[in-house]
Amino acid sequence: MIMKTGKAELICTGSELLEGKLNLYPPLFHARLAPLGFTLAREQSCGDSLADIADCITGALRRADLVLVCGGLGPTFDDLTRQAAARALGRRLVSSRHCAQILALNYGLEKLPPNLKDQALLVEGAKALENANGTAFGEVLTEGRKLLVLLPGPRSEWEPMFGSFLDSEIKDFFKRQPLTQVKLRLAGLGEPKAEALLKPAMRKAPELRYTILAGPGLIDFIIAGSEPAAIKRAAARCRRAAGAAFYGEGDLTLAAAIGGKLAAGGRTLASAESCTGGLVSKLATDVPGSSNWFLGGAVAYSNAAKTRLLGVKAATLKKHGAVSGECAAEMAAGARKVFGCDYAVSVTGIAGPDGGTPDKPVGLVWFGLAGPGKTRVFRREFRGGRDYVRARAANFILDELRKIIK
Amino acid sequence: MIMKTGKAELICTGSELLEGKLNLYPPLFHARLAPLGFTLAREQSCGDSLADIADCITGALRRADLVLVCGGLGPTFDDLTRQAAARALGRRLVSSRHCAQILALNYGLEKLPPNLKDQALLVEGAKALENANGTAFGEVLTEGRKLLVLLPGPRSEWEPMFGSFLDSEIKDFFKRQPLTQVKLRLAGLGEPKAEALLKPAMRKAPELRYTILAGPGLIDFIIAGSEPAAIKRAAARCRRAAGAAFYGEGDLTLAAAIGGKLAAGGRTLASAESCTGGLVSKLATDVPGSSNWFLGGAVAYSNAAKTRLLGVKAATLKKHGAVSGECAAEMAAGARKVFGCDYAVSVTGIAGPDGGTPDKPVGLVWFGLAGPGKTRVFRREFRGGRDYVRARAANFILDELRKIIK
Repeated sequence: MIMKTGKAELICTGSELLEGKLNLYPPLFHARLAPLGFTLAREQSCGDSLADIADCITGALRRADLVLVCGGLGPTFDDLTRQAAARALGRRLVSSRHCAQILALNYGLEKLPPNLKDQALLVEGAKALENANGTAFGEVLTEGRKLLVLLPGPRSEWEPMFGSFLDSEIKDFFKRQPLTQVKLRLAGLGEPKAEALLKPAMRKAPELRYTILAGPGLIDFIIAGSEPAAIKRAAARCRRAAGAAFYGEGDLTLAAAIGGKLAAGGRTLASAESCTGGLVSKLATDVPGSSNWFLGGAVAYSNAAKTRLLGVKAATLKKHGAVSGECAAEMAAGARKVFGCDYAVSVTGIAGPDGGTPDKPVGLVWFGLAGPGKTRVFRREFRGGRDYVRARAANFILDELRKIIK
Repeated sequence: MIMKTGKAELICTGSELLEGKLNLYPPLFHARLAPLGFTLAREQSCGDSLADIADCITGALRRADLVLVCGGLGPTFDDLTRQAAARALGRRLVSSRHCAQILALNYGLEKLPPNLKDQALLVEGAKALENANGTAFGEVLTEGRKLLVLLPGPRSEWEPMFGSFLDSEIKDFFKRQPLTQVKLRLAGLGEPKAEALLKPAMRKAPELRYTILAGPGLIDFIIAGSEPAAIKRAAARCRRAAGAAFYGEGDLTLAAAIGGKLAAGGRTLASAESCTGGLVSKLATDVPGSSNWFLGGAVAYSNAAKTRLLGVKAATLKKHGAVSGECAAEMAAGARKVFGCDYAVSVTGIAGPDGGTPDKPVGLVWFGLAGPGKTRVFRREFRGGRDYVRARAANFILDELRKIIK
């Protein structure tokens, strides 16, 4: 059975994408479009030039059923997507009184000043998409049997539009069999290991589409297809194959999974960080409502801070150094005591790029995990840049914590 | 004077790029092409389809002087770039005896087996580029005054080709002036304000290219052109126009700028965070070598933690609440004391999505800034989702700190 998927194209505007900035969007749009029954057939990044954007749109509309343009709807001189779409479709731009009113309200002004009036322009025939997290409206345009969607550039602005109304706009227009998609979230294994574990399960349902997205110590495994029952069976098989690495489905983060378990048992957490410098507590507090289970954290970068805030003994630091199992254990136990919580995690290591020695190379990280029982320690060596080592370390200890919470 | 940079386009082949894999290449190619005097005018990612790749090449050759295609030169069925280039140019594929010999040698074989013979095919008129780190040859093709370059997909294979011979191939063919770029980093103003400030300076050198990149409370302003002296003058003008909002150039982050000032004066910093949950200390410790000036931070999410770690008075919390100027001031002063540092910043607010009241709405944040003089407090209301409010708040207090450090 061949899946009857529609053809979509993505256009990302912004000279920065051609001048050194990584384009993080294609995977995100892929994840949004697959459940709607669309595959991304091409992605184009182009600069902030009216002619270029218009040319990208013209080409994409010739080839694809659904064309999404992301970026270039802001209030400044280099925001030209509206004008480009109007040119590509041979339509005029019309000022929307309704949009102007909402914009004035958002800016807290009585009347829209001239420099912001462009933001109230719509391509003739467009339906405006409200933006709950910014000022630029999105626009949906139909051209024959094709759909053109203009979206604001920031992820925080365009992503919520899908769930709120764009999903149904697209579904209603194309009346396409939606693809069902399940995202399994795994921790503690790399891409090759995940693939090896999951391959037998994948072979049992070769008509489905599988995607592996690898992060630092995390794997998202996406199963997509047109038949919900088949997806459900495949997801169950893959979950079993993944075993203890599976921690949740959909958009649940590792920290949110931990929070759910902690909150269910009325238990609490704190962190004590050195080399991750606050990343563990940042990940915990990314979760809305985390104040119910996360009491706080100590970022003890200096030795004095480790002693003063967490009660790490000066003798331990002198004898074993700050990057040691002994120090990690005292950090975790100290955090558990000072915050008065059930669990505490600690991280101390050498994130690099400097500070490594033959004994303690860059990438070496010690972890502590204090709970109702005894305090455990872990030692790992990670390879990669400073950011990668820090992210990998934070995810590692969160995953170990997840596994011991009952 | 119009900039005499050449127009290049990049085509990345591989269905994985449209199914969840991040494309890391555009920034790398930008970095390779800029010194050769080329700007990347467009990037296209397309799947492993002969027709699609040929269509991408045809379009790119119509628009650009230099077209690079990356990927699809391997030995398997979905490697179709050679065939696509031949179709786009209307040329035949010819088997190269020379390439076949080298390939056989690389594979350690007497004679090339049939399944590998495709790899010895060159588009008619192509010059083969030797691959020191893999088996697939690159190809350079001229079509009138344009240059088409086919490169193997793995970075480890195509990147060394530039330094070894591709740089000189391109230079010799185009005889072009290289391009210079300066990035100014600004904090504490939004995109419209930045544009209004910088517009007069931009008008004085309209021949240069300007790009504004907006982050949460941060602006990157990029000036590019072919004449280093003109860029330098424009950068100086724009710096003056930006005034106190300018904090650095190039890839210097706000936290790194602060770190530089602190380290120069032998001074130190700590943080006390509630709603940002560790983001301030994460940003500080993102900076390599931050242990020289960042002593640590307390993430005091619960009231008990605020009292125990930072010495916030129970009476203050009772009378004014945790989200108040009084609490922010005591948090900052407490952090300064417990860490024994010169400066301490504090953040306490309501990041949302829940927890707001009419008096204290979601987005309300109080800040404290303790230094050698008196402790200051700031009150701001930010609009946007939880992540935005947190990022905006962290950048706000870092910027206020930057401004007071002598």
